[in-house]
Amino acid sequence: MKLILAVALAIGCGMPLGAQQPRMDKETQAKIDDTIAAYAAAWGEPDVAKRRELLEKAWATDGVYIDPTAHVEGREALVQHISGFLKSLPGHRIEATSRTDVHHNQLRFSWRLLKPDGSVLTEGMDFGALDSAGRLTRIVGFFGPFPALAR
Amino acid sequence: MKLILAVALAIGCGMPLGAQQPRMDKETQAKIDDTIAAYAAAWGEPDVAKRRELLEKAWATDGVYIDPTAHVEGREALVQHISGFLKSLPGHRIEATSRTDVHHNQLRFSWRLLKPDGSVLTEGMDFGALDSAGRLTRIVGFFGPFPALAR
Repeated sequence: MKLILAVALAIGCGMPLGAQQPRMDKETQAKIDDTIAAYAAAWGEPDVAKRRELLEKAWATDGVYIDPTAHVEGREALVQHISGFLKSLPGHRIEATSRTDVHHNQLRFSWRLLKPDGSVLTEGMDFGALDSAGRLTRIVGFFGPFPALAR
Repeated sequence: MKLILAVALAIGCGMPLGAQQPRMDKETQAKIDDTIAAYAAAWGEPDVAKRRELLEKAWATDGVYIDPTAHVEGREALVQHISGFLKSLPGHRIEATSRTDVHHNQLRFSWRLLKPDGSVLTEGMDFGALDSAGRLTRIVGFFGPFPALAR
């Protein structure tokens, strides 16, 4: 019934359906923004102790990280995985390029990977899930835009 | 190490990182394309028996479907959920607007919801997971584009 209402509103307003979703309250949005900011900062933090502290805030103990090149289980394994990432790409950092959208503890945001000079190395998108404490239990990353349809 | 190689290739080729991912073999891609085609067709199939047949092909028995307005557990529940969707939006259908990208049994694709006259009601994106038999165990949908950053 909620979908019917959302669609009716969307038709009525001539707006994309997404614009008609109930907005999160400010406190919830702020908490999620903080979590994603800490998570993204962890990817650019060369100090292992500081990185662990960021992930203790943002990442569940048994959270799973998956991207096209990696499958990493657990917070401490992610702390170490990022060490390898930063060894290969020193001074690089991840920056969100969208706000984080959440429903049913499921989330999405887009990002870009910046070189030390601030230019963009690549872009991508992350989809994830949160536990009841608001920590990430899963991130699945994809690189680049959605692949074009085969015609 | 694979990320290092992918990034090195990306830098070397001046290409987005996504373009450097190893391509799926044709058979795997064709199987996934079939699965997503059957799944999308199920959303436009008014005949319950035919819809169930499509989802028996594409959806795991205990697969979970989540979008901003719904949380549906199990294949038969999804068969019934789509009945409600089509009752509210008769003649509407979902069409993929990207190819499906898969790694580690995790996938993404974008789509649009078409009115009976073929015009676009809304667009969105789905993220999901496959079981070892290639059936969907999870779809998490989001409506509209990524939300703009608050500036």
